[in-house]
Formats: sequence, C-alpha cells, structure tokens
Amino acid sequence: MKKKNNSKLKIIPLGGLEQIGMNITAFEYEDSIIVVDCGLSFPEDDMLGIDLVIPDVTYLRDNIDKVKGFFITHGHEDHIGAIPYVLRDINVPIYATKLTIGIIDNKLREHNMLTKVKRKVVKYGQHINLGCFRVEFIKTNHSIQDAAALAIYSPAGIVVHTGDFKVDYTPVFGDAIDLQRFGEIGKKGVLALMCDSTNAERVGFTNSERTVGKTFDNIFSEHKDTRIIIATFASNVDRVQQIINSAYKFERKVVVEGRSMVNIISTATELGYLHIPEHTLIDIEQLKDYPDEQTVLITTGSQGESMAALSRMAANLHKKVTIKPGDTIIFSSNPIPGNEKAVSNVINELFMKGAEVIFQDAHVSGHACREEIKLIYSLVKPKYAIPVHGEYKHLKAQASIARELGYEKENIFILSSGNVLELDENEAKVTGQVPVGDILVDGLGVGDVGNIVLRDRQHLAEDGIIIVVMTLESGSGQVLAGPDIVSRGFVYVRGAESLMDEAKQVLDDVMDYCMGKNITDWGKIKTEVKEELSEFVWKKTKRRPMIMPIIMEV
Amino acid sequence: MKKKNNSKLKIIPLGGLEQIGMNITAFEYEDSIIVVDCGLSFPEDDMLGIDLVIPDVTYLRDNIDKVKGFFITHGHEDHIGAIPYVLRDINVPIYATKLTIGIIDNKLREHNMLTKVKRKVVKYGQHINLGCFRVEFIKTNHSIQDAAALAIYSPAGIVVHTGDFKVDYTPVFGDAIDLQRFGEIGKKGVLALMCDSTNAERVGFTNSERTVGKTFDNIFSEHKDTRIIIATFASNVDRVQQIINSAYKFERKVVVEGRSMVNIISTATELGYLHIPEHTLIDIEQLKDYPDEQTVLITTGSQGESMAALSRMAANLHKKVTIKPGDTIIFSSNPIPGNEKAVSNVINELFMKGAEVIFQDAHVSGHACREEIKLIYSLVKPKYAIPVHGEYKHLKAQASIARELGYEKENIFILSSGNVLELDENEAKVTGQVPVGDILVDGLGVGDVGNIVLRDRQHLAEDGIIIVVMTLESGSGQVLAGPDIVSRGFVYVRGAESLMDEAKQVLDDVMDYCMGKNITDWGKIKTEVKEELSEFVWKKTKRRPMIMPIIMEV
Repeated sequence: MKKKNNSKLKIIPLGGLEQIGMNITAFEYEDSIIVVDCGLSFPEDDMLGIDLVIPDVTYLRDNIDKVKGFFITHGHEDHIGAIPYVLRDINVPIYATKLTIGIIDNKLREHNMLTKVKRKVVKYGQHINLGCFRVEFIKTNHSIQDAAALAIYSPAGIVVHTGDFKVDYTPVFGDAIDLQRFGEIGKKGVLALMCDSTNAERVGFTNSERTVGKTFDNIFSEHKDTRIIIATFASNVDRVQQIINSAYKFERKVVVEGRSMVNIISTATELGYLHIPEHTLIDIEQLKDYPDEQTVLITTGSQGESMAALSRMAANLHKKVTIKPGDTIIFSSNPIPGNEKAVSNVINELFMKGAEVIFQDAHVSGHACREEIKLIYSLVKPKYAIPVHGEYKHLKAQASIARELGYEKENIFILSSGNVLELDENEAKVTGQVPVGDILVDGLGVGDVGNIVLRDRQHLAEDGIIIVVMTLESGSGQVLAGPDIVSRGFVYVRGAESLMDEAKQVLDDVMDYCMGKNITDWGKIKTEVKEELSEFVWKKTKRRPMIMPIIMEV
Repeated sequence: MKKKNNSKLKIIPLGGLEQIGMNITAFEYEDSIIVVDCGLSFPEDDMLGIDLVIPDVTYLRDNIDKVKGFFITHGHEDHIGAIPYVLRDINVPIYATKLTIGIIDNKLREHNMLTKVKRKVVKYGQHINLGCFRVEFIKTNHSIQDAAALAIYSPAGIVVHTGDFKVDYTPVFGDAIDLQRFGEIGKKGVLALMCDSTNAERVGFTNSERTVGKTFDNIFSEHKDTRIIIATFASNVDRVQQIINSAYKFERKVVVEGRSMVNIISTATELGYLHIPEHTLIDIEQLKDYPDEQTVLITTGSQGESMAALSRMAANLHKKVTIKPGDTIIFSSNPIPGNEKAVSNVINELFMKGAEVIFQDAHVSGHACREEIKLIYSLVKPKYAIPVHGEYKHLKAQASIARELGYEKENIFILSSGNVLELDENEAKVTGQVPVGDILVDGLGVGDVGNIVLRDRQHLAEDGIIIVVMTLESGSGQVLAGPDIVSRGFVYVRGAESLMDEAKQVLDDVMDYCMGKNITDWGKIKTEVKEELSEFVWKKTKRRPMIMPIIMEV
C-alpha cells in the first residue's frame, strides 16, 4: 500500500451525477479498479415504454482485467438495481452487509444468476483488501437497514464515501451511525469526502425514524374504531417494524399487501432485521374474519404507482380490499419528485370513497440535512470535497456548505458522469472523460431501444400512424391493388370517414401522377405519398401522424 | 323576480369539480339559464397528443332556448379557454370586466370569431338582468387583475360565487376586495355561497402581492452586477408591473420574451392596467446594446414547459438569449401540481450554465387560505355552503372549514360535475344528473379523439407497432407477395435482424398452415397472424407491440 511512484488515484463516476439514480463509481489506482454501487434509474417521462435504465459500463469492460470487485453501500434500487445486468459481463465478487446481500440475492434469483455471482457478507469495521485498495465498512443510518459508508484506503490516500445516510441518534433497529469512527479516520488525514447531497438544500437536521413511531401510536390511539391502511416504501423495514409495534400495542392484526412488500418483509424477517410477534401477521384471506378496527394493512403504492396495491384499492380494482367510508389511510412517505400528481390523484380517489387520509408527520427522510452534512465534514475534514448523490442543484448546495465551512473553490469538485478525477495529496483535477450513458431496458431487451425507437414512439404517441399499402405489378409498375389506408391512434374512423375518403382521393391522384410521369422507383413513390398525404392531413387536422407507405410487388 | 310558485333554483356544475380546470356552472330557474365561466383544462398525462380539454355542454345545447348569457369571473384559461368552442353553438352574450373581455377578445380573434360573439364590459357594482336572474359584479383580488365575484339574484334567493379570489388589503393596482359589499349582501340573506377551495388546506392568510415587489427590490439591490431574468405567469400583470417598477428604480431596461407574455402585456397596456415608464421597454434585438447589469428579461417558462422561452434558454435552444455564468434567474411562481419535475430539470440546467437561481419569496398565491375563506363565510353567512374550484381534497378541506364555522353536514354540498342541486330557502338536495364529460381537442379536431384512439396511442407509445402485409390472389387465396414485416417504435432494426428473420419464418409457417387448411377468410388469417406473431414476440422480448396484419388482393 506504499505509494511507489507518481501514480494518482482516479475517481470516475459512471452514472448518477445528473439525476438521482444509477449510482456507480469506479476507483482506479494503477492496475486495480474497485466499484462502489451498481444502481439503476427509473425512466424519464420521455422514455416511452422503457422499464428501467442502467449505466453504460464500457469503461469497466474495457478494463476488465483491472476490476477487482463491487462494494455496495445499501440495498436500494438506485444502488443495486443494475447488478444483474452489469455483473453478467464483469464477473467479480460483490461485498456488502448482510441485509444488502439478502436483497441482492433476491434480485439475482429473479434473473437466474444466483450461482453465477459471488457475494460476500461484510461486517461493520471489517476491512477488505483488493488489489491496491483496502475498503472498510462503517455503520451509518438510512431509510433501509444495514447501510454503510466506505473508507477506501489507496496508496494515494483515503477516500470516505458516505453512501446514502442520515444521522439517527435513536434508530429503531441496531446502532446509531459510527461517528467516532468517522472522527478517527478523519484524524488520520482524509484525501477526499464523497458525501450524500440529496437534502443539501434543507436546513437543520433530519428527524429520527423513531418520531414516526410516535406518530403511529397517536394515530392508532385516535382511530380505535376504524380500519387503518398504511402505505410506505417496501424497503423501509424500520418503518414496517414500527407499524407492527403499534399494531401489536393496539391489538390489531397486520396484513401485508403488494409483492415487493411481501418479498422484503420475508427477507428481513429471515435475516433477523424484523421482529414480528407471534399471531400478529395474518393472511389477506383472513381479513374478513376480523372486525375492521382490529386490523392494519401495510401496503405498497405510496408513490401513486398505478399498478401498486393502494392505487388498485383506491380505483376499486383490488380483488381483496375495498376502501370503505371511515377507513383511515396513512401515507408514510413523501412523493418522490415527478410523482406528486399521481399521489394527489390517489388521495382524491380515497377521499371520494369517504376515507380519511393522513400524511402529517408520518414520514421522515433517510438523507442528511445541512447540519448533518456539516457534522460529517467536521469529523472527516477531507482535503477535497466531492458532493455526490443528487441532482445538480443538490450537488451545488453541498458545495456551498463546503464553502461555508472554509473550503476553497478549487478543492470542491462537482463532477459529471464520466469525468476522470485524478488526485493525490498535492493536487486534484479532472484529466479526462470516459464513455458513459443510459442503457434502456425494455422487457428482455437491454440497449435495443435507442433514440430512433424512442423518437418513433413519441411520434406515434402524439398523433398515431397512417399506413398506406399498395401492390404494384412487377416490371410494368402498374398499380394492381390499393393504395389502401389504415390508421391507428389518429382519429376514430367512424367519425372520420369523409376525411379518409378524401385522403384516398389524394393518394389516387399521387399514383396517377406517378404513373403518368413513369415514376417507378419505389423510393420516389413513397416520398410522393408521404409528402402529399402529410400536407393534406396537416391542412385538414393540424396533426402530423407518422405516414408509412408500404409497397408490395407481384 | 318574485317567486311565484314552487320553482327552485338549479345549480349545475358542468365541469371543474374533479380536477382544477374547466370551470363552468349553469344556474337555472324555470325558463332561464345563465352560465358562470367557460374554462378549459390541460390534458392529463395519459391523454397522449391532446392539446386541451373542454367541457361537454350537451345540457346547454339541449336547453339552448333557455340560455341567456355567460358571466366570466376573470381571464384565466380555466375560466375562459372553452369560449371559442362552446360559443360556436350557443351564441349568447358574454359579460365580464374590462381586462377579462380584452383577453377574451384576443382569444376570439385567434379563432376568427370576434364578430360572431357579443361581449359586454361590466363595471363592479353593475347589475345585469337576464331572464329570471340579476347578476352583480363584486370587486375581488386574484393573480390576474379585474377578477370579480358574482352575486346571483334569483327568485329562490341569492347565490354568491366568489370566482377565484384572495383578500389583498394592499393590491398593486386598483382596489382591495370589496368586503363591505360582501357584508351588505350577506345582511340581505344569502341562499348559497360557492367559494374558491384551491388553498383550503393552507392555514393562515395569503400574502399581499405587494410583498413580492419588496423581494424584487431586495434581489435587484443585491445583484447590481448581473443580468436578471424573471420567469412568471404571463397573465399576472401585477407581477409584471412590479418587475417593471423595480427595473425602473434600479435603472435597468426591460425585455419581454415569450409569445403569451408579449400578448398579454400589450393588451394590459392598451387597456390601462399596466404602466410602463417611457424608454424602459426595449426590443430583444436591442439587448446587445446594453451591458448585462442594465437589463432585465421577463419571460415565460416558469412551469418548465419545454417550448417556453426560459426552457429554450436553459437548453441552449433560444435564438437570442444564452444563459451566462453569473446570470441571476428568478422563478416568480410555484410549480403547478404535475410540473414539479419539469421545473426542477430547468433549474438544474440553469445551475449547470453557472447561473444563480432564486425562488424564495418571489411568489405569492392568488387564492384564499383558510382564514380568508372563514372571513368570506362570516361576511356572507350563506344558508348552504358549496365549495368549488379545487380537487376533491380541497373541496373537502373547505367543507371542514364550514363545519368548524358551525355549518351542519346537510347544508354543505360537495358536488360532482353534472349534479343538479335544487335549492330554495326550505331545502337543498341533489335531484339529478345531466351528461357531462371531457371533450378532447387535438389540433383542429374537437372530440374526434376518443378512448379508442387514446388507447391505441398508449399502446403505440409503450411498445410500437409491427405491420404485416401480404398480397393474396383473388379467388385462389394463394400468397402472391409477402408476408412482409415492417416495424416502428419496436426495436431498432439494425440490432434486431435475426429477430425479424425468425418472425418472418413464423409468418411463413402461419401462411403455410392457413393454405394447408384452406383458410381463406381474411379475418381468420389476420387472427392467426396476430396470435402467432404476438406469442413469438412476447416470448423473445417480453413486449407486446401492436400487431397489424394488412391483406391486399390482386
């Protein structure tokens, strides 16, 4: 681990710096690369039909001999979701804490890759040696259990990566964040701190998870006569634990609904992260055997996702649960940016069915606010500040915190995905750029949907398609059948017969013109058809459907 | 106006009670109908390609002889936007205040309908007699000037409709809301109050528009060395006035950018609602003649709309303005629900270009909060409370305010669009339902895009389309050409050649099977093609593109 020559440490974020999601960062020193996290992101609104987005890891594939292993900070999708895709080609071990590995195992099992990928469970305080690197796992708090910060020891110096974290002095399960260890490592001298920026715009401290438990107790005690339904994030096992605690205290049976919720609860229970008193959990089928006021449902759908359990209940589409007047429904969550409208729609539907809907104080964030970020900086006292995990405005907000703490502008780095930051104790600078990007996953297809397909889908979504087919005689080029018109997503045909009749006339004229001019080149015929029909349709409707001429030859 | 018999007043909201937008309410007494407002709403996310949504006014058309006129409370799109569509068939006069009529005139001019629709400018305090009704305009405050509440006198009693309002004791232009008149009418005895619910969930009072002016002064004084760009709602003329005031005070020239902003400013200036000191306004072409620190841009795009001026500047797509490091950009607006993500994206882009972005205290709402709503109830003291203008949760929040003020549940009516509320001083109840609904406007088409077309667009957007064409011999039914495959929005063909080759093989097999079995019915052939190809594609890709077989005959 001694620094032998002038080599520098390279930090290369391969995703996750333009939007929240798709966290993956390579650390390179001479012939060794280790990777921190391997997340996915969810598609933007304009990525029509796309299921999820994973990072382009060409750089890792091009340097596959150097890559020694993946270190995963916690079990959220934006940190683990791309593992089944990326680890197909880059088969190195994954290191993470117990619950994180448990969640990764579920994911690998779904992709039939459990036997192909090596996973190693790491304890807090444990150090892993890989190539030029040594990596230590440090206890933190977050909205999922078993979250870790990493101290990455390289010959060029120590980098502390917080992962996603908050400071919770009174966590529901396990210990508080190991602030002492942050301080101890800080005392050794830390080259760079890569710190979570999600809440860097928010003043003060994030509340303890435990405060939500108090809210639940209050709500349960004020709603003794109604059924209670609580929507929250499946992965927030502490939240689920607190709901179960309140249910037990108030002698209610608990039903868990929604596939992801059921999965994570069974994993967390098996691994000892969730403690459910006997006879508390009942099956959804048993719900009818208990009076409403003796039951609690824990459900997915806190983000208004249309297929999730709560949304289906609100829309009267759920097979087993119908919302009734008097039901008390708690949103134990905040809408993730972009989901506000969907959540609002579900709330309106619930109100219309006569339910009471509560969100006040029923959620706390899993991310550090400004004072917590200052605390970590003050313990770690890095030479360089590298804000991570956030939209650009959040990274910028953390940079301004660092400035307040006295850091010089030139020691703060707001990186972009693909930037190569080379650093040692003398100097840090961005020296290059590696290829990065979004790879779109649609069904089984990984990367087979690109910009052309998305643009076509956008076009089809806006104005639909008009297909023009005709059969020409081989040799003579005479029209034997058609041109016929079929449309989808344009106008409903019953209301548009005369429009379609006129369009047919336009096409007949085009073909007469082509025949008259002896135009037999299919490309030219298609161009004529497209141009004339497009102009006609625009004039009549001010719409621009996709126009697709197809010629057959007999 | 004496009540002769047992007739009751009917209040029939024809839109606007499920979502904010599309406000239109019919008031009917015996042979008279008057209509308050005539708004549009903007399309929901799943209304692909739709430009705007207008109300189904079948009820008005079916009772066209009774309809006497439209009363418009103020000039926002959700109150005036459907006028050019609805007034095509129902040609009665429109009554509104001066600026509101000015804005309606612009709209009618765009639709070539200015000569077809009668408009009458009404002053505050003026009464209009129409059929059984008398309507009085009362001064209110809102985020657009010249907003009015209406006192609707009918033989069954008085209904007060607030329109959209807030209480501003220190408005920028004109008078404060005429609270005295609300009190005076209240003293006469009011049958029902229809009150704005938008902010019914928010405690306290909405701040005066004037507070935003102070914020502008502070920002201008703290940013003397940079260009200032302010995005706000085009129709908020008071906001524009305050920006101009600050610009004048700090000796900056003002450029107005964005089509809707330019339009409304010219209308407001012509009608005397906006006072621009000489030589303050300059053309965007002159911008280059002044140093940055002597200019202010007022622009559209405060909602992150992709085609608006600010979004184009942020994305480097604006022809005349490029964002520079140091630019100070103020969002004088809050994101409308559903726009949060788009606004956030624009902010990130602006930050990346090195601009400073400010939103703190640079906006106040135009709608009354809980204490203002209580104030209006206490002045008007209606017998019945009918919360209007809001999502269901907002109507419900106002209902809870009414309950706090001592109203009995049976005197509070949360209506749905189409409900017929019959009322007089003895009784009020919902006695029926008239047809209502969304009519989708796409380009020039009004109502020609329905659920089938939307479902097709959704399908096309998700997974694209595969078109299968073939030419069969007339009589024999033998395949003369094809089956050929073309796809759009499915996969990019270059990466999918083998998939398409295999699909072609599937189709050849289908056709061999059909020929072998002597299946010549086109319907049956198409069904076979769809089923087999669909199954093949699903197995290979887990996608379900629209599959469209087209058969030609020669």
